[in-house]
Amino acid sequence: MSTQQEWIITRSEFNPQKIHHDETVFTIGNGYLSTRGSFEESFPEENAATFIHGVFDDIPVVFTELVNVPNWLDCVLILDGERFRLDYGEILDYENQLDLSKATLTRSVKWRSPAGKAYQISFERVICLHEQHLLLLRVGINPLDGDAEVIFRSGINGCVSNEGYVHWKHKAQSVQPGRGWLSLVTKKSETGLGMSFSLKSSLPQIKMQAWNMDMHPVLNCSGFIPSQEVLWFEKRVTVYTTRDVQEPIHASETLLGQLKASSWEDLISAHQKKWQQVWTQSDIEIDSEDDAQIAIRYNLFQLLIAAPWQDEQVNIGAKTLSGYGYHGHVFWDTEIFMLPFFTYTQPQVARNLLSYRYHRLAGARKKAKENGYLGAQFPWESADDGEEVTPTWVQHPTDRTKLTRIWTGDIQIHVSADIALAVWRYGQVSGDDKFLHERGIPIILETALFWESRAEWNEINQTYQFSDVIGPDEYHDHVDNNAYNNFMVRWHFRIAEQAAHLLQAHEPDLYAGLVDQLGLSDSRMQHWLEIANHIYFEQDALTGLIEQFQGFFQLEDLDWKSLEPRSESIQSLLGIEATNQVQALKQADVLMLFYLFPDAFPSQIMAVNYDYYNARTDHTYGSSLGPSIHALVACQLGKTEEAYQHFIRSAHADLYDVRGNAGDGIHAASAGGLWQAVVFGFGGLRVDEYGYHCQSRLPKKWRRLRFRFCYRGEWITIQIPGQEVRE
Amino acid sequence: MSTQQEWIITRSEFNPQKIHHDETVFTIGNGYLSTRGSFEESFPEENAATFIHGVFDDIPVVFTELVNVPNWLDCVLILDGERFRLDYGEILDYENQLDLSKATLTRSVKWRSPAGKAYQISFERVICLHEQHLLLLRVGINPLDGDAEVIFRSGINGCVSNEGYVHWKHKAQSVQPGRGWLSLVTKKSETGLGMSFSLKSSLPQIKMQAWNMDMHPVLNCSGFIPSQEVLWFEKRVTVYTTRDVQEPIHASETLLGQLKASSWEDLISAHQKKWQQVWTQSDIEIDSEDDAQIAIRYNLFQLLIAAPWQDEQVNIGAKTLSGYGYHGHVFWDTEIFMLPFFTYTQPQVARNLLSYRYHRLAGARKKAKENGYLGAQFPWESADDGEEVTPTWVQHPTDRTKLTRIWTGDIQIHVSADIALAVWRYGQVSGDDKFLHERGIPIILETALFWESRAEWNEINQTYQFSDVIGPDEYHDHVDNNAYNNFMVRWHFRIAEQAAHLLQAHEPDLYAGLVDQLGLSDSRMQHWLEIANHIYFEQDALTGLIEQFQGFFQLEDLDWKSLEPRSESIQSLLGIEATNQVQALKQADVLMLFYLFPDAFPSQIMAVNYDYYNARTDHTYGSSLGPSIHALVACQLGKTEEAYQHFIRSAHADLYDVRGNAGDGIHAASAGGLWQAVVFGFGGLRVDEYGYHCQSRLPKKWRRLRFRFCYRGEWITIQIPGQEVRE
Repeated sequence: MSTQQEWIITRSEFNPQKIHHDETVFTIGNGYLSTRGSFEESFPEENAATFIHGVFDDIPVVFTELVNVPNWLDCVLILDGERFRLDYGEILDYENQLDLSKATLTRSVKWRSPAGKAYQISFERVICLHEQHLLLLRVGINPLDGDAEVIFRSGINGCVSNEGYVHWKHKAQSVQPGRGWLSLVTKKSETGLGMSFSLKSSLPQIKMQAWNMDMHPVLNCSGFIPSQEVLWFEKRVTVYTTRDVQEPIHASETLLGQLKASSWEDLISAHQKKWQQVWTQSDIEIDSEDDAQIAIRYNLFQLLIAAPWQDEQVNIGAKTLSGYGYHGHVFWDTEIFMLPFFTYTQPQVARNLLSYRYHRLAGARKKAKENGYLGAQFPWESADDGEEVTPTWVQHPTDRTKLTRIWTGDIQIHVSADIALAVWRYGQVSGDDKFLHERGIPIILETALFWESRAEWNEINQTYQFSDVIGPDEYHDHVDNNAYNNFMVRWHFRIAEQAAHLLQAHEPDLYAGLVDQLGLSDSRMQHWLEIANHIYFEQDALTGLIEQFQGFFQLEDLDWKSLEPRSESIQSLLGIEATNQVQALKQADVLMLFYLFPDAFPSQIMAVNYDYYNARTDHTYGSSLGPSIHALVACQLGKTEEAYQHFIRSAHADLYDVRGNAGDGIHAASAGGLWQAVVFGFGGLRVDEYGYHCQSRLPKKWRRLRFRFCYRGEWITIQIPGQEVRE
Repeated sequence: MSTQQEWIITRSEFNPQKIHHDETVFTIGNGYLSTRGSFEESFPEENAATFIHGVFDDIPVVFTELVNVPNWLDCVLILDGERFRLDYGEILDYENQLDLSKATLTRSVKWRSPAGKAYQISFERVICLHEQHLLLLRVGINPLDGDAEVIFRSGINGCVSNEGYVHWKHKAQSVQPGRGWLSLVTKKSETGLGMSFSLKSSLPQIKMQAWNMDMHPVLNCSGFIPSQEVLWFEKRVTVYTTRDVQEPIHASETLLGQLKASSWEDLISAHQKKWQQVWTQSDIEIDSEDDAQIAIRYNLFQLLIAAPWQDEQVNIGAKTLSGYGYHGHVFWDTEIFMLPFFTYTQPQVARNLLSYRYHRLAGARKKAKENGYLGAQFPWESADDGEEVTPTWVQHPTDRTKLTRIWTGDIQIHVSADIALAVWRYGQVSGDDKFLHERGIPIILETALFWESRAEWNEINQTYQFSDVIGPDEYHDHVDNNAYNNFMVRWHFRIAEQAAHLLQAHEPDLYAGLVDQLGLSDSRMQHWLEIANHIYFEQDALTGLIEQFQGFFQLEDLDWKSLEPRSESIQSLLGIEATNQVQALKQADVLMLFYLFPDAFPSQIMAVNYDYYNARTDHTYGSSLGPSIHALVACQLGKTEEAYQHFIRSAHADLYDVRGNAGDGIHAASAGGLWQAVVFGFGGLRVDEYGYHCQSRLPKKWRRLRFRFCYRGEWITIQIPGQEVRE
């Protein structure tokens, strides 16, 4: 992988062992859909996929998953009777490039066929940002050893599956020389999809035949290319679903027709202009000795192509739209890790993401009710309808007759407070009072009701407690009084009381409605504060250590060195039960509090806890969510160089596949945490109720850092060293 | 459904609501593969499938399943621009016919297109019995309203799945005018498949174009048909897998080439001749007032098309090769229900089926060992490698977060004795001593070892017992001392001791080998007899009632009338737990003993028990295995007319879909039991160590019954009324 240039990711050698990793790395998208970087001409064992936000369908075990939509790349290229595919013939030259500034994927291959003739073949792929329903593909074929007889076949391939599971049923289709379309519907969720395409070639002698194969309408193009000439094919694809319009095919055909007047250059230029605007807001500039510049841009790019610019009914899954991992399900990863980036640089995306939660309060109410609680309890994993979609049981990794119980959907409850925090912080930074009043505060109050009914009064130690939960550190389940959980709930109750008074003051009618709907009252608020003031939260008076959960310090210490070198997580090595019994963390959840509430603890206390938990965390194969948070907290403690090690581990997670699972999709929370490590950590930006300020600490390798953010409608540029610029 | 003629099943009206039922009913096959009666031109929501014996692939939950192979029918027909499919246009006339004597499926449709023109379209489908790798299809198109422009497209469609689950990976393919082939491999089991096809038309003006679409090579044929002329297409398909040969495509291409010299008529004639031979042995003739004749033939036909004539590495699944139900898994259904039909009329098939068990002793040994037992314990569900493939957990029918534990794979252990019984009976009837000595007795002895280690000595009542089992009546699980189980084990020990001495006498070397391998000894045999003589088996001295299992008589009686009318099973209505607590039977397992051992009990005891258990059995929606057994036992008791009611329920199970689940595939055990009900029940045939005799009792509606069977190499024809004829 070459990342020398500041905007371009280049792979100059094709390695068939790494195709799944490269498919993830070279994912492009526009916030409506994304397509993995699989090859136009296909490759054996590929994991190709295009996912459209919000298009889910039923599947056993994990309930629902993002559906792989028909393959719009779909190219077969036969050169002088030889099929072009990278497992045949000889690759003489290879370059795959993702230009982050223009969101364009290009590939150029010099290939010698098994018959011995050489050709230069190039691909250019764009998923338009200015028109989210438009996808563009250009293929160039240049015979290097004399004339060539070429067959190029391309269309829309509906014979696709999610790793072997078929979600689409056929509805209708058509194809004629120059264009065609395919109409499908998902089997259970009955989401309709329409995809249209047009295809034209640059040489008049190329004949085009329509092959109207069921599920797979294609155009079969054939003819001669004179030596040294380049034959170009230009393909345009439009796509709509019944989530967008009533008649997707009507819409995709109409758009394709409307675009006829626009040249390739027009379309590309409009697309690039749009990306320029996006980067103007979201870019981070780093002048560094290493590849920090391109690495941070790459991570931000992956968040930006998954960002729902125009849709408040979808959210970003843990693997964005870039792979099959976690099936497109949405976790706290969005609110706690990804959201700040959007809140500060693309506030309308943050608003859409939080509105998704607001629109799914019904699912959260259902979950609370089914568990016997009041208010709204957000699911640990959320998808289309906002009901809990965490798998309950999964196959045991080795014994095929056994199942493993997954408890996160039952007891990892902190997500409801995480969402409330994201709502409040978004309101604080954006100044979007309308959202806060109409959607944000209702979320905060209704989830507070859940906490009220979930809190348990302990008569013996006179505290409110939360037993049998899972904190961020998932190596320990069924724990009592997890520090992260309890601290968040305390914050939640206090902010709920403030939020209620705020709403009452500014929007008395809205407030009155909520009072009726939720049964709010002064005495209830008092009760909330009462719970908050008596929530169990223990800090050792002598050492200053905060115990991750009750009894954690009684667990045995792990001899980490005896397990090195290792290539899997501590939990994989020891098993679920044994890991539960030692002081080994998947991710440090006490440190999460320092990251989220940097002013809540004296720095000496933070330092003591950082040292303790940092040494006990599975940084390499534990949670991918951890490193960027460790980077940030280390920055807060002035350990800038140590922070930088964590930063680099997070920055390279997907680019260099440091965890070996990048093939499943982008580590989106890591990418979001990375922005925070740079801006809040090295950049030292702090925003609170009084405004913002910066206390930067750049690592040695960095000469300059520059970023922008929007504070209550005002754009501010921070340059370090240098000064802050308001616009 | 019309079944007026004695050999032909006719459907004269197309009902789209019943397509899955009809797909099962019109299944044809040749014991190598079967194809469901789905339409050549396809239909929305169809459940098309072709299964080849022994081609399994991995799947979650149920471990492995028979793989739906590429669709060899694969026809697209476009008449004057209108797609022919039965959900378009108007059906003016329709006839779908399965000729059981010739194993030929023909369909004739007079169809008016949406544009208003009428056509007569006919299909003839044959899966050859004389050449098991050859499949034939003929399509006739006759325009009734003037000339017609026709497009006919056909090939091999590899884009298939098992109800949405994809098992095939692409290897290679080719197509040229007149023929093509497709080579695939299953994803996990890596079974290779080669399918070749040829296509020719009867009119010279038809142009043929090869469309070499990945996974789906087709020939696109187009041209004009003059008014009133008939255009015929003849398609031949050959198929091999790596289970048959090393290079399936080489074999399928070779066979297709060799057959070029044979005309359609030649091939059909050879096929029909082979079927004539089969029916000569297996047919039952009934002269009856009702449709008993065609119904029995239909059931036997379905067993015959699933019979592995040449393969001793496969068995017949509970749903034959006719549907997705039970995934092709093999149960005791084969040995206890289907096998007698083959033992008596197609002994080489019985030998192959039992040899399948012999070749899978390794899997049975593994299961015994894993459970801590000696010898061989056959799995409750068996598939390719003979290991246990019963699902352990399945999705709860209503609560998506819950799972239901399936216990049959753990504790429904009687299958090992069932197999031993089938082995012994086959030996007795066929006189195939070579099989008995080399394969049969080893099975009997090694499974006896399992029983030895599984038996529990009860000090208190001084009996050997079997606690925590499931008997044939699966409404009651985790029961102690199931009557069927214990009686079978007693028989098993006694026959094992006899079999050992038989082998010692006839094949002392073989016996010596087994003594070494299994640790046999005289004292061990004595111990077996000792266990047999002390196995718990209770019969009430006063009433003569045999208790189905310990404690059954203490369960509450069910008020059956209060649940009528019902359209689901007692277990569905009451739930698993509640059904366990009442005297309601899925199928009567005490009566199974009378069926298997008609001389072991005085008829008065049989009568008492029949009356008791018959009244407590869920005949309508319990096990489909029950009715034919009730018919047989009622015959034994002289209740011929009551027997006939049970007989008809079983005979119509699939033809009239009386249980509503025929779409999942044929009820093969019911079909096998039906033959026994006729031959052993109404025919009264009894074969034991002393020979055979008949004591017939025909129902009133029957004027004549005639059947044949083979006793120790000698063919005997029984005609009632009339005399027995030896050949």
